[in-house]
Amino acid sequence: MSSRKPYAQMSKAELSSEYQQLRQIYRKYQGMELNLNMARGKPCREQLDLSMGLMDALTSDADLSCEDGTDCRNYGVLDGIAECKKLMGDMMENNPENIIVYGNSSLNVMYDTVSRAYTHGIMGNTPWCRLDKVKFLCPVPGYDRHFGITEYFGIDMIPVPMYPTGPDMDMVEKLVAEDEAIKGIWCVPKYSNPQGYSYSDETVRRFARLRPKAPDFRIFWDNAYCVHHLYDDPSKQTHIIEILNECKLAGHPDMVYKFASTSKITFPGSGISALATSENNLVDIKNQLKHQTIGHDKVNQLRHVRFFSNGYTIEEHMKKHAAILRPKFEAVERIFEEELGGLGIATWTKPLGGYFISFDGTKGTAKEIVDKAKKAGVTLTPAGATWPYHKDPADSNIRIAPSYPPLEDLETAAKLFTVCVRMVTAKHMLDALENAGAEED
Amino acid sequence: MSSRKPYAQMSKAELSSEYQQLRQIYRKYQGMELNLNMARGKPCREQLDLSMGLMDALTSDADLSCEDGTDCRNYGVLDGIAECKKLMGDMMENNPENIIVYGNSSLNVMYDTVSRAYTHGIMGNTPWCRLDKVKFLCPVPGYDRHFGITEYFGIDMIPVPMYPTGPDMDMVEKLVAEDEAIKGIWCVPKYSNPQGYSYSDETVRRFARLRPKAPDFRIFWDNAYCVHHLYDDPSKQTHIIEILNECKLAGHPDMVYKFASTSKITFPGSGISALATSENNLVDIKNQLKHQTIGHDKVNQLRHVRFFSNGYTIEEHMKKHAAILRPKFEAVERIFEEELGGLGIATWTKPLGGYFISFDGTKGTAKEIVDKAKKAGVTLTPAGATWPYHKDPADSNIRIAPSYPPLEDLETAAKLFTVCVRMVTAKHMLDALENAGAEED
Repeated sequence: MSSRKPYAQMSKAELSSEYQQLRQIYRKYQGMELNLNMARGKPCREQLDLSMGLMDALTSDADLSCEDGTDCRNYGVLDGIAECKKLMGDMMENNPENIIVYGNSSLNVMYDTVSRAYTHGIMGNTPWCRLDKVKFLCPVPGYDRHFGITEYFGIDMIPVPMYPTGPDMDMVEKLVAEDEAIKGIWCVPKYSNPQGYSYSDETVRRFARLRPKAPDFRIFWDNAYCVHHLYDDPSKQTHIIEILNECKLAGHPDMVYKFASTSKITFPGSGISALATSENNLVDIKNQLKHQTIGHDKVNQLRHVRFFSNGYTIEEHMKKHAAILRPKFEAVERIFEEELGGLGIATWTKPLGGYFISFDGTKGTAKEIVDKAKKAGVTLTPAGATWPYHKDPADSNIRIAPSYPPLEDLETAAKLFTVCVRMVTAKHMLDALENAGAEED
Repeated sequence: MSSRKPYAQMSKAELSSEYQQLRQIYRKYQGMELNLNMARGKPCREQLDLSMGLMDALTSDADLSCEDGTDCRNYGVLDGIAECKKLMGDMMENNPENIIVYGNSSLNVMYDTVSRAYTHGIMGNTPWCRLDKVKFLCPVPGYDRHFGITEYFGIDMIPVPMYPTGPDMDMVEKLVAEDEAIKGIWCVPKYSNPQGYSYSDETVRRFARLRPKAPDFRIFWDNAYCVHHLYDDPSKQTHIIEILNECKLAGHPDMVYKFASTSKITFPGSGISALATSENNLVDIKNQLKHQTIGHDKVNQLRHVRFFSNGYTIEEHMKKHAAILRPKFEAVERIFEEELGGLGIATWTKPLGGYFISFDGTKGTAKEIVDKAKKAGVTLTPAGATWPYHKDPADSNIRIAPSYPPLEDLETAAKLFTVCVRMVTAKHMLDALENAGAEED
């Protein structure tokens, strides 16, 4: 279908013909009354089925006691049962002593971490609510729910460009060293949301060696996709340097909060989340946490421990997820290549893990592409969502989430998406030519 | 053992002999090397065993879908699944539409409610962190974890006397009408912590008709023991007026946040909690909650729904709890009566529900009684814990928690406690006589 001639090299007539053709195809899709969703990083039913054994991990004849004898059914244990700290430590590559196990949502932990800094300050520093200005660095495109938290707390968000190696570290280093109001940076260091990029060794090392002006500057290291590879072949898996240890080596042990959860390992919303950080930070956090709760759901912690036993079992479990997700990512990439390759109107990432593909169209087209797709029955993440304040200055980035729809639906959705991209882009270029012509008159 | 002669009527010699006798008995207890705990309202093992069926409510062959088709395993549903709202509504006597189902801890919901008011304000009012002064009314003696939250946020706590009918409403009405800085009051309206008092109809009606000066004044109505009767006989069960409805009738629909949980129904720490409030408040809360989480643990919500089906089943289930708890409360009351009755040195409550007995000794003895008990191996809630800032001005109140120890241990602990009470009180009175004598010289 693709003419393979770059749009920029097309004559006005060719572009016009292309546009008319695409309109026809688009109308056909509209007639199909699709109702597909590529908006959120939701696991699909087959993925959820992988963890049904979790439901049998604890039955009424089970002993719900921890190794140390604690009855998991009762109150207590603020920071999580020992065996679950160990399990999460295996997964997060951290010492169990550095871990607090929380409830079902790492987003909740991140929100509470910002909220605590806002109300009470970090390790004795001024609460952020008493400061005139608090700023966060936001690598872009990034995760909308991260930006949602900082926006909700009135924190100024400064976009920082993302590269395949991670954020622009020259910029990060310069800004945090200069400005005491910069208190944090949102990071998804591995298989980033939405690009699927992973931070290079150099990037992680430079993070650990930041010299922030603010003593309460913290790296919010959301390792959401730490074991979420798409390929079993180790050479196609990404490993990143463990940040807590690196910060310690660099003499900044307290500079990072690291988050993870089993949301995309077992059941989203019914998994467990965890935070790993330095001892000083743990003391600071627990001093607040003890007022907020007596403890998180230990039965669910024990359930996960009994289901998985250890980090190796998690790795094996994740291969089953990969077997379901991989064909979906590959299908989208194949269709994008077939339908958009060589046209010079779009780029997209080819992740080795995580949940998203980051798509960039021609400047000023993203909103319209998402709108057109919506009108033909395919819901995408709203354009702009990947930027602070929902404002993508180039209006070019769209996050693609291939996980949820069945493969066949996904292929339909991806094809329709490429039709929208080409149609909107062709129209934009035609309009530009019109305008240029008008100006010449 | 009890001489039944009031201590106040004893001669110095009688008191001295009593004291020496008690010291001997106390030393015997010390020799027993006890290790008993009456400090916290923890259910005992037999109570936890009542809910083991919960572990079989959802197995790997179960359909984890809601009635509306929502897959509980996946992301979504910010305010709880419909059938769980209904279940909690049954229990809380509220319309499901007024309910948000949360995670495992109502304490967490209360903390977050205060925190949200502090960071963002209530329904458009000034965030509390921007105010010079925020105050809460604290009926005393009360629940230490409530006071812990307000203290942590630097909120001034004003003690309000508690009577068997509830807080001193004359004082509450006057203070909230006068002082705009008063933003809330902590209430445990039914089987109060620690007295086991329940608010009278008049008290609840007066609450609903408060005319607070602060538009963002809220009643924090912690209905922790809403179905936690000790007796099956309805004439021995307390029913209180439903506060949301009463506030609505009184023209103040937004004035109350009502909290409850299944912590002392199924498993503490692995149950579900809920908040019931007006539609305006719900909108306000959800506007924040959506930034904090994608949703709470729906699988656990469904698990509770499948286990209980409805409010009637909860009532029946609570009778089994009562059968375990009732003998413990009665044993403590019997021993207190046997050992302390008629001595004129102590009073205690005789609750029809809840988890605590409130004990009041002679002025200035509580800390020492708790200390003596501790040194003989019985841990009690620290004296002062039932007051804001841990400061009981009379140093007389001690919270007794009979639920956790086995009956036999509880009897030993209660007996030792009465020995400590008598010994410490006798010593205090002797010291007072000495001092009076010295002054006369």
